[in-house]
Amino acid sequence: MAMTNGKTLVTMIAAGNREIQDFLDSDQRETPYLVIDLKVAAQQFRRLTGAFRETTVFYAVKANPQPKLIRQLAQLGSSFDVASPAEIDLCLSEGADPSRLSYGNTIKKAADIRYAYDRGVRMFVFDSEAELRKLAEHAPGSAVFCRLLAGSAGAQWPLSRKFGCAPDMAVSLLAQARDLGLRPIGVSFHVGSQQLDPTRWDPSVAQAAQVFRELAERGIHLTLLNCGGGFPTGYQDPVAPIEAYADAINTAVERHFGPYRPTLAIEPGRFIAADTGVLRAQVVLVSQKSYDDDHRWVYLDIGRFGGLAETEGEAIQYRLVTARDGEPTGPVVLAGPTCDSVDILYEKAPYRLPLDLEPGDYVDILGTGAYTTTYSSVGFNGFAPLATFCIGDNA
Amino acid sequence: MAMTNGKTLVTMIAAGNREIQDFLDSDQRETPYLVIDLKVAAQQFRRLTGAFRETTVFYAVKANPQPKLIRQLAQLGSSFDVASPAEIDLCLSEGADPSRLSYGNTIKKAADIRYAYDRGVRMFVFDSEAELRKLAEHAPGSAVFCRLLAGSAGAQWPLSRKFGCAPDMAVSLLAQARDLGLRPIGVSFHVGSQQLDPTRWDPSVAQAAQVFRELAERGIHLTLLNCGGGFPTGYQDPVAPIEAYADAINTAVERHFGPYRPTLAIEPGRFIAADTGVLRAQVVLVSQKSYDDDHRWVYLDIGRFGGLAETEGEAIQYRLVTARDGEPTGPVVLAGPTCDSVDILYEKAPYRLPLDLEPGDYVDILGTGAYTTTYSSVGFNGFAPLATFCIGDNA
Repeated sequence: MAMTNGKTLVTMIAAGNREIQDFLDSDQRETPYLVIDLKVAAQQFRRLTGAFRETTVFYAVKANPQPKLIRQLAQLGSSFDVASPAEIDLCLSEGADPSRLSYGNTIKKAADIRYAYDRGVRMFVFDSEAELRKLAEHAPGSAVFCRLLAGSAGAQWPLSRKFGCAPDMAVSLLAQARDLGLRPIGVSFHVGSQQLDPTRWDPSVAQAAQVFRELAERGIHLTLLNCGGGFPTGYQDPVAPIEAYADAINTAVERHFGPYRPTLAIEPGRFIAADTGVLRAQVVLVSQKSYDDDHRWVYLDIGRFGGLAETEGEAIQYRLVTARDGEPTGPVVLAGPTCDSVDILYEKAPYRLPLDLEPGDYVDILGTGAYTTTYSSVGFNGFAPLATFCIGDNA
Repeated sequence: MAMTNGKTLVTMIAAGNREIQDFLDSDQRETPYLVIDLKVAAQQFRRLTGAFRETTVFYAVKANPQPKLIRQLAQLGSSFDVASPAEIDLCLSEGADPSRLSYGNTIKKAADIRYAYDRGVRMFVFDSEAELRKLAEHAPGSAVFCRLLAGSAGAQWPLSRKFGCAPDMAVSLLAQARDLGLRPIGVSFHVGSQQLDPTRWDPSVAQAAQVFRELAERGIHLTLLNCGGGFPTGYQDPVAPIEAYADAINTAVERHFGPYRPTLAIEPGRFIAADTGVLRAQVVLVSQKSYDDDHRWVYLDIGRFGGLAETEGEAIQYRLVTARDGEPTGPVVLAGPTCDSVDILYEKAPYRLPLDLEPGDYVDILGTGAYTTTYSSVGFNGFAPLATFCIGDNA
């Protein structure tokens, strides 16, 4: 088995992140594992707040609920988009005030709404009458906002019709919210995760402005426009800078709201967390299916059920780094280690890896600080969940 | 919130399984959870061994590694198909002798092969030269069998080209196995999980027979034909009885092997475990996306990341039972509770549920004893992994 020269890994991409490289080089830990650098999260948070002026940033905890990351973001002044009681407990225990939490899941059990309310959460989303009635009963007097259906063309992890409702229904429900003793404060929408096109926010901002106007005619003055997340990471190719997204959203708000500018909120997850992490995996097997097959199959010790769930449909295509980069390469199919045939990472995407790649070689998967660890199965095929190490605590 | 009359659940389908129904009725436990009846596993095991004479049954532990289930199957005389060191440890600690374990994952770390060997495992699969060389080094002298690529048309959870190699490669590698000091004993193949067509084994049996013949010409006499798993469960519609599968396989073996009948093995997982379990979930929300939409969205407290991974692509379509069955129904889209838009169970499949279904109602998902619990994420969106309760211990 070839010894991997860990020192040559990562440098190509995460240039400047000496700390992650040093961590990877410092020991032979059992793979797979994720290492995240909290300093990167702080940088990303500051980039966001620099680009989006007078905008409340609700970090989407689901992207990476690592407690130290939550603590750091709380210290930096972030608010939090939470999806469950466990995420609420996490944020509170890591120092966030409940006034900074937004219960951003449109699908909540009555008992979970009550749980949040009892802990001081006073901001909730909804997209249906049934949810609104639960909120009126279990979170009386709370601020509520309605999620609109939005198109997600252009997104690499697009959203379906699962969340949100039509604008005319949003108008009715927000009016009903007031009658139910709740405080209707605005609307939200989400244009799809890893959204590569900054102009995709415009149509939803236009719809939101219309909802604001119709409710103003009924004497209900909304104030909050929550533009969701979707701000991308450059997994392989560069993406537009975050300032381009801020500009596009501000331009859309000016165009559609005119002088009646709402308070803006965003819910970034991937943008803050993805670049914090490098996932170190190991090659388990390199093989061919027949003697005349020009594709090698490269099997890693992580796959779709070990944390790389976003490779479903080959949607998110991570950049890979090996110690043999620079050597001649050939096309590969990449797969995970389980006996499940859907546990294939990339079969259609044109990945190439060094021809002399061998079992035991490390493969570093970049941009894996978001949407990896919590997707990991509890133990499919008997493989343990993905471990995380944190560095950069003292940022 | 409507009170659910738990007593009317399940009876429609799992008629005769009074015990599961009594368990569900006996308490208001926090949902979602799975209850499995070990007696059903024993019945299914006996059905298999009754249908497949003189065939070694290797239970595919990955289907459900519940320790009590493993212990019971060990007591019944089952052998075990294991995929990892953790599954090996589990089987040994539940009373299986290492001689009854087959390390059936074609993708094994060298250290994991050594781990298995050190614990007495002496039967291993491979489908590539690299894996064979690892086995020769770390499991010297062991019995090895080669997995053939197989078509999986007709399977509801089909297998890709991920596993297996072409027959001519299998011949070469099995010959090489002998030269490397291993004991080449046979071939395996897998025609896809939940395989509805018993005739699909025939082409692979034919290929296997050809491999046997070519090796016999080289003086290597294989003895084991491992026909894999794939034996289905009747999730919604009836499936052919297990005897039809046994007959089809025996007929194929007679046709292609003639008088030189090999020892048969099978690796059932779903067939043994699926019908043991009922997953109790709860309706979290029923909503519509607009006032003119005739589809209701029904959101449950379990979804693709809580254990129902096999609903990917709507592949496995479970039968659902509610306390309101018998009332008028309408079309629904079924989705899970997370903020992930791919967490949709059935959008194209024509599911209908009672029109008066409400948040808080129980929905029992049948046939969920296999391929559910271990797929469950460690905590995506902060939701806890799927809990399991076992009944029928004293079978």
